[in-house]
Amino acid sequence: MGKEGIKMIDHQSDEHWMSEAMRLAKKAAQAGEVPVGAIIVHEGNAIGRAYNQVETLKDATAHAEMLALTQAQSVIGDWRLTESVLYVTKEPCPMCAGAIVHCRLKRVVFGVSDGKAGACGGAINLLALPGLNHRCEITPGIRAEESKAILQDFFREKRAHNRLSLTEDLD
Amino acid sequence: MGKEGIKMIDHQSDEHWMSEAMRLAKKAAQAGEVPVGAIIVHEGNAIGRAYNQVETLKDATAHAEMLALTQAQSVIGDWRLTESVLYVTKEPCPMCAGAIVHCRLKRVVFGVSDGKAGACGGAINLLALPGLNHRCEITPGIRAEESKAILQDFFREKRAHNRLSLTEDLD
Repeated sequence: MGKEGIKMIDHQSDEHWMSEAMRLAKKAAQAGEVPVGAIIVHEGNAIGRAYNQVETLKDATAHAEMLALTQAQSVIGDWRLTESVLYVTKEPCPMCAGAIVHCRLKRVVFGVSDGKAGACGGAINLLALPGLNHRCEITPGIRAEESKAILQDFFREKRAHNRLSLTEDLD
Repeated sequence: MGKEGIKMIDHQSDEHWMSEAMRLAKKAAQAGEVPVGAIIVHEGNAIGRAYNQVETLKDATAHAEMLALTQAQSVIGDWRLTESVLYVTKEPCPMCAGAIVHCRLKRVVFGVSDGKAGACGGAINLLALPGLNHRCEITPGIRAEESKAILQDFFREKRAHNRLSLTEDLD
Protein backbone atom coordinates (compact mmCIF):
# COMPACT_ATOMS: atom_id res chain seq x y z
CA MET A 1 0.00 0.00 0.00
CA GLY A 2 1.43 3.39 -0.99
CA LYS A 3 1.83 6.25 1.46
CA GLU A 4 -1.26 7.94 -0.01
CA GLY A 5 -3.33 4.97 1.19
CA ILE A 6 -2.39 5.43 4.84
CA LYS A 7 -4.98 7.35 6.82
CA MET A 8 -3.14 9.61 9.22
CA ILE A 9 -4.72 10.12 12.61
CA ASP A 10 -4.20 13.55 14.15
CA HIS A 11 -4.06 12.78 17.85
CA GLN A 12 -4.64 16.40 18.77
CA SER A 13 -7.68 16.99 16.58
CA ASP A 14 -11.14 17.66 18.04
CA GLU A 15 -12.36 14.58 16.16
CA HIS A 16 -9.76 12.36 17.85
CA TRP A 17 -10.57 13.53 21.39
CA MET A 18 -14.29 13.26 20.68
CA SER A 19 -13.82 9.63 19.62
CA GLU A 20 -12.17 9.03 23.02
CA ALA A 21 -15.14 10.69 24.73
CA MET A 22 -17.51 8.44 22.70
CA ARG A 23 -15.59 5.39 23.90
CA LEU A 24 -16.34 6.51 27.48
CA ALA A 25 -20.01 7.13 26.59
CA LYS A 26 -20.26 3.50 25.40
CA LYS A 27 -18.84 2.35 28.75
CA ALA A 28 -21.61 4.32 30.49
CA ALA A 29 -24.22 2.49 28.40
CA GLN A 30 -22.70 -0.85 29.38
CA ALA A 31 -23.09 0.21 33.04
CA GLY A 32 -26.77 1.07 32.45
CA GLU A 33 -26.10 4.81 32.60
CA VAL A 34 -27.30 7.43 30.11
CA PRO A 35 -24.31 7.32 27.72
CA VAL A 36 -22.38 10.56 27.92
CA GLY A 37 -18.57 10.66 28.02
CA ALA A 38 -16.19 13.54 28.77
CA ILE A 39 -12.47 14.21 28.48
CA ILE A 40 -10.47 17.24 29.59
CA VAL A 41 -7.30 17.98 27.65
CA HIS A 42 -4.47 20.20 28.89
CA GLU A 43 -1.41 20.83 26.71
CA GLY A 44 -2.17 17.76 24.62
CA ASN A 45 -2.73 15.39 27.54
CA ALA A 46 -5.98 14.04 28.94
CA ILE A 47 -6.16 15.12 32.60
CA GLY A 48 -9.76 14.04 33.22
CA ARG A 49 -11.78 11.15 31.77
CA ALA A 50 -15.23 10.18 32.96
CA TYR A 51 -18.64 8.91 32.01
CA ASN A 52 -22.03 9.59 33.53
CA GLN A 53 -22.43 7.71 36.83
CA VAL A 54 -25.68 9.09 38.29
CA GLU A 55 -27.22 5.67 38.98
CA THR A 56 -23.99 3.93 40.03
CA LEU A 57 -23.08 6.63 42.56
CA LYS A 58 -26.74 7.49 43.36
CA ASP A 59 -25.73 11.11 42.83
CA ALA A 60 -27.67 13.28 40.38
CA THR A 61 -24.67 15.61 40.11
CA ALA A 62 -22.36 12.81 38.88
CA HIS A 63 -22.52 13.84 35.22
CA ALA A 64 -19.52 12.96 33.04
CA GLU A 65 -18.44 16.61 32.86
CA MET A 66 -18.56 17.16 36.66
CA LEU A 67 -16.50 14.04 37.36
CA ALA A 68 -13.95 14.94 34.66
CA LEU A 69 -13.66 18.52 35.99
CA THR A 70 -12.99 17.28 39.53
CA GLN A 71 -10.27 14.93 38.22
CA ALA A 72 -8.69 17.67 36.12
CA GLN A 73 -8.62 20.14 39.03
CA SER A 74 -6.96 17.48 41.15
CA VAL A 75 -4.28 16.85 38.47
CA ILE A 76 -3.57 20.57 37.98
CA GLY A 77 -3.75 21.28 41.74
CA ASP A 78 -5.91 24.33 41.13
CA TRP A 79 -9.55 25.03 40.34
CA ARG A 80 -8.52 27.30 37.48
CA LEU A 81 -8.48 25.31 34.24
CA THR A 82 -7.84 28.28 31.95
CA GLU A 83 -5.71 26.30 29.48
CA SER A 84 -7.94 23.23 29.33
CA VAL A 85 -10.46 22.05 26.75
CA LEU A 86 -13.48 19.87 27.57
CA TYR A 87 -14.69 17.30 25.04
CA VAL A 88 -18.15 15.90 25.77
CA THR A 89 -20.44 13.81 23.60
CA LYS A 90 -23.62 15.75 24.48
CA GLU A 91 -24.17 19.47 25.01
CA PRO A 92 -23.69 20.27 28.74
CA CYS A 93 -26.75 20.93 30.94
CA PRO A 94 -27.12 24.10 33.08
CA MET A 95 -25.33 22.50 36.06
CA CYS A 96 -22.32 21.44 33.99
CA ALA A 97 -22.22 24.72 32.04
CA GLY A 98 -22.18 26.59 35.36
CA ALA A 99 -19.29 24.40 36.56
CA ILE A 100 -17.41 25.02 33.29
CA VAL A 101 -17.64 28.78 33.88
CA HIS A 102 -16.49 28.43 37.51
CA CYS A 103 -13.43 26.43 36.37
CA ARG A 104 -12.75 29.04 33.66
CA LEU A 105 -12.26 26.45 30.94
CA LYS A 106 -10.75 27.73 27.72
CA ARG A 107 -13.04 25.87 25.33
CA VAL A 108 -15.90 23.39 25.26
CA VAL A 109 -16.26 20.97 22.33
CA PHE A 110 -19.44 18.92 22.19
CA GLY A 111 -21.11 16.35 19.97
CA VAL A 112 -24.89 16.34 19.79
CA SER A 113 -26.86 19.46 20.74
CA ASP A 114 -29.66 19.37 23.31
CA GLY A 115 -32.46 21.71 22.28
CA LYS A 116 -34.44 20.85 25.40
CA ALA A 117 -31.97 21.43 28.22
CA GLY A 118 -28.60 22.25 26.61
CA ALA A 119 -26.89 25.23 28.21
CA CYS A 120 -24.23 26.00 25.59
CA GLY A 121 -26.61 27.45 23.01
CA GLY A 122 -29.16 24.60 22.63
CA ALA A 123 -31.89 25.79 25.00
CA ILE A 124 -29.92 28.59 26.65
CA ASN A 125 -26.30 29.84 26.63
CA LEU A 126 -24.91 30.02 30.16
CA LEU A 127 -21.32 30.20 28.93
CA ALA A 128 -21.94 33.81 27.99
CA LEU A 129 -24.25 35.01 30.80
CA PRO A 130 -23.39 38.74 31.14
CA GLY A 131 -23.01 38.63 34.96
CA LEU A 132 -20.45 35.83 34.97
CA ASN A 133 -16.73 36.53 35.13
CA HIS A 134 -15.66 34.20 32.38
CA ARG A 135 -16.63 33.42 28.83
CA CYS A 136 -15.74 30.16 27.22
CA GLU A 137 -15.31 29.32 23.53
CA ILE A 138 -17.81 26.78 22.16
CA THR A 139 -17.25 24.31 19.32
CA PRO A 140 -20.51 22.39 18.73
CA GLY A 141 -21.36 19.47 16.48
CA ILE A 142 -18.12 17.45 16.46
CA ARG A 143 -19.06 13.84 15.57
CA ALA A 144 -22.61 14.84 16.46
CA GLU A 145 -24.37 12.06 14.52
CA GLU A 146 -22.33 9.29 16.16
CA SER A 147 -22.76 10.84 19.63
CA LYS A 148 -26.51 11.05 19.01
CA ALA A 149 -26.65 7.44 17.80
CA ILE A 150 -25.04 6.22 21.06
CA LEU A 151 -27.83 7.91 23.05
CA GLN A 152 -30.58 6.75 20.66
CA ASP A 153 -29.39 3.12 20.77
CA PHE A 154 -29.36 3.23 24.58
CA PHE A 155 -32.92 4.54 24.90
CA ARG A 156 -34.19 2.20 22.15
CA GLU A 157 -32.77 -0.82 23.98
CA LYS A 158 -34.12 0.44 27.30
CA ARG A 159 -37.63 0.79 25.87
CA ALA A 160 -37.44 -2.68 24.29
CA HIS A 161 -36.29 -4.13 27.62
CA ASN A 162 -39.13 -2.40 29.49
CA ARG A 163 -41.70 -3.74 26.97
CA LEU A 164 -40.29 -7.23 27.39
CA SER A 165 -40.50 -6.97 31.20
CA LEU A 166 -44.09 -5.77 30.92
CA THR A 167 -45.00 -8.68 28.61
CA GLU A 168 -43.45 -11.14 31.06
CA ASP A 169 -45.41 -9.59 33.93
CA LEU A 170 -48.63 -10.04 31.94
CA ASP A 171 -47.97 -13.73 31.15
CA MET B 1 -40.88 36.51 83.81
CA GLY B 2 -44.39 35.67 82.61
CA LYS B 3 -45.08 33.23 79.82
CA GLU B 4 -45.77 36.12 77.46
CA GLY B 5 -42.13 37.21 77.91
CA ILE B 6 -40.67 33.96 76.64
CA LYS B 7 -39.63 34.08 73.00
CA MET B 8 -40.53 30.73 71.51
CA ILE B 9 -38.19 29.37 68.85
CA ASP B 10 -39.87 27.37 66.12
CA HIS B 11 -37.26 24.80 65.22
CA GLN B 12 -38.98 24.01 61.95
CA SER B 13 -39.36 27.56 60.70
CA ASP B 14 -37.51 28.84 57.63
CA GLU B 15 -35.91 31.49 59.89
CA HIS B 16 -34.51 28.84 62.24
CA TRP B 17 -32.94 26.76 59.47
CA MET B 18 -31.57 29.88 57.82
CA SER B 19 -29.85 30.85 61.07
CA GLU B 20 -28.18 27.41 61.03
CA ALA B 21 -27.07 28.03 57.43
CA MET B 22 -25.68 31.43 58.49
CA ARG B 23 -23.68 29.73 61.24
CA LEU B 24 -22.07 27.58 58.53
CA ALA B 25 -21.45 30.66 56.36
CA LYS B 26 -19.48 32.22 59.24
CA LYS B 27 -17.38 29.05 59.46
CA ALA B 28 -16.57 29.46 55.75
CA ALA B 29 -15.38 33.03 56.42
CA GLN B 30 -13.12 31.79 59.22
CA ALA B 31 -11.60 29.34 56.72
CA GLY B 32 -10.97 32.16 54.24
CA GLU B 33 -13.74 31.02 51.93
CA VAL B 34 -16.50 33.20 50.45
CA PRO B 35 -19.07 32.82 53.26
CA VAL B 36 -22.04 30.84 52.01
CA GLY B 37 -23.68 28.10 54.09
CA ALA B 38 -26.28 25.48 53.13
CA ILE B 39 -28.49 22.99 54.94
CA ILE B 40 -30.81 20.35 53.49
CA VAL B 41 -33.81 19.37 55.61
CA HIS B 42 -35.84 16.20 55.17
CA GLU B 43 -38.85 15.50 57.41
CA GLY B 44 -37.60 17.97 60.00
CA ASN B 45 -34.03 16.68 60.10
CA ALA B 46 -30.88 18.17 58.62
CA ILE B 47 -29.44 15.56 56.22
CA GLY B 48 -26.80 17.80 54.63
CA ARG B 49 -24.77 20.67 56.10
CA ALA B 50 -21.93 22.38 54.29
CA TYR B 51 -20.14 25.62 53.61
CA ASN B 52 -18.29 26.81 50.55
CA GLN B 53 -14.91 25.07 50.26
CA VAL B 54 -13.64 26.10 46.80
CA GLU B 55 -10.18 27.20 48.02
CA THR B 56 -9.75 24.49 50.66
CA LEU B 57 -10.58 21.67 48.25
CA LYS B 58 -9.14 23.50 45.20
CA ASP B 59 -12.39 22.61 43.47
CA ALA B 60 -14.48 25.35 41.85
CA THR B 61 -17.55 23.10 42.06
CA ALA B 62 -17.30 22.79 45.87
CA HIS B 63 -20.06 25.31 46.58
CA ALA B 64 -21.98 24.89 49.85
CA GLU B 65 -25.09 23.69 47.98
CA MET B 66 -23.22 21.03 45.95
CA LEU B 67 -21.52 19.58 49.03
CA ALA B 68 -24.81 19.57 51.00
CA LEU B 69 -26.65 17.88 48.09
CA THR B 70 -24.04 15.12 47.86
CA GLN B 71 -24.31 14.50 51.63
CA ALA B 72 -28.12 14.45 51.51
CA GLN B 73 -28.17 11.99 48.60
CA SER B 74 -25.82 9.75 50.54
CA VAL B 75 -28.07 9.86 53.65
CA ILE B 76 -31.26 9.14 51.64
CA GLY B 77 -29.49 6.52 49.47
CA ASP B 78 -31.05 7.97 46.35
CA TRP B 79 -30.41 10.93 44.07
CA ARG B 80 -34.09 11.90 44.27
CA LEU B 81 -34.59 14.46 47.04
CA THR B 82 -38.25 15.14 46.28
CA GLU B 83 -39.21 15.71 49.93
CA SER B 84 -36.21 17.84 50.87
CA VAL B 85 -35.80 21.58 51.32
CA LEU B 86 -32.52 23.45 50.76
CA TYR B 87 -31.68 26.48 52.92
CA VAL B 88 -28.80 28.57 51.59
CA THR B 89 -27.62 32.02 52.65
CA LYS B 90 -27.10 33.32 49.08
CA GLU B 91 -29.15 32.74 45.95
CA PRO B 92 -27.75 29.68 44.12
CA CYS B 93 -25.64 30.16 40.97
CA PRO B 94 -26.46 28.42 37.63
CA MET B 95 -24.39 25.33 38.54
CA CYS B 96 -26.14 24.85 41.88
CA ALA B 97 -29.58 25.65 40.46
CA GLY B 98 -28.98 23.00 37.80
CA ALA B 99 -28.00 20.48 40.48
CA ILE B 100 -31.13 21.38 42.50
CA VAL B 101 -33.30 20.54 39.49
CA HIS B 102 -31.44 17.25 38.87
CA CYS B 103 -32.03 16.22 42.51
CA ARG B 104 -35.69 17.24 42.20
CA LEU B 105 -35.67 19.22 45.43
CA LYS B 106 -39.09 20.23 46.73
CA ARG B 107 -38.19 23.78 47.73
CA VAL B 108 -35.28 26.20 47.86
CA VAL B 109 -35.14 28.89 50.56
CA PHE B 110 -32.42 31.50 50.22
CA GLY B 111 -31.21 34.63 52.00
CA VAL B 112 -29.69 37.38 49.89
CA SER B 113 -30.47 37.61 46.17
CA ASP B 114 -27.74 37.78 43.53
CA GLY B 115 -28.76 40.08 40.71
CA LYS B 116 -25.50 39.39 38.85
CA ALA B 117 -25.34 35.60 38.72
CA GLY B 118 -28.28 34.28 40.77
CA ALA B 119 -30.15 31.49 38.98
CA CYS B 120 -33.34 31.36 41.08
CA GLY B 121 -34.82 34.59 39.78
CA GLY B 122 -31.97 37.08 40.45
CA ALA B 123 -30.23 37.12 37.05
CA ILE B 124 -32.10 34.15 35.54
CA ASN B 125 -34.51 31.48 36.77
CA LEU B 126 -33.19 28.01 35.97
CA LEU B 127 -35.57 26.33 38.43
CA ALA B 128 -38.37 26.86 35.93
CA LEU B 129 -36.60 26.31 32.57
CA PRO B 130 -39.34 24.91 30.30
CA GLY B 131 -37.25 21.98 29.01
CA LEU B 132 -36.38 20.62 32.44
CA ASN B 133 -38.38 17.82 34.03
CA HIS B 134 -38.78 19.36 37.45
CA ARG B 135 -39.86 22.66 38.90
CA CYS B 136 -38.90 23.68 42.37
CA GLU B 137 -40.66 26.09 44.76
CA ILE B 138 -38.60 29.18 45.67
CA THR B 139 -38.76 31.18 48.93
CA PRO B 140 -36.38 34.15 48.61
CA GLY B 141 -35.30 36.80 51.12
CA ILE B 142 -35.27 34.84 54.41
CA ARG B 143 -32.87 36.69 56.78
CA ALA B 144 -31.54 38.39 53.66
CA GLU B 145 -29.97 41.39 55.39
CA GLU B 146 -27.97 39.24 57.83
CA SER B 147 -26.86 36.87 55.05
CA LYS B 148 -25.77 39.88 52.98
CA ALA B 149 -23.89 41.39 55.95
CA ILE B 150 -21.84 38.18 56.37
CA LEU B 151 -20.69 38.47 52.74
CA GLN B 152 -20.07 42.24 52.96
CA ASP B 153 -18.00 41.89 56.15
CA PHE B 154 -15.89 39.17 54.50
CA PHE B 155 -15.11 41.20 51.39
CA ARG B 156 -14.49 44.40 53.42
CA GLU B 157 -11.94 42.58 55.60
CA LYS B 158 -10.35 41.00 52.55
CA ARG B 159 -9.92 44.39 50.87
CA ALA B 160 -8.49 45.91 54.07
CA HIS B 161 -6.06 42.98 54.36
CA ASN B 162 -4.98 43.37 50.72
CA ARG B 163 -4.40 47.13 51.21
CA LEU B 164 -2.31 46.37 54.29
CA SER B 165 -0.22 43.80 52.38
CA LEU B 166 0.29 46.31 49.58
CA THR B 167 1.38 49.00 52.06
CA GLU B 168 3.85 46.57 53.64
CA ASP B 169 5.22 45.67 50.19
CA LEU B 170 5.77 49.38 49.48
CA ASP B 171 7.64 50.00 52.74
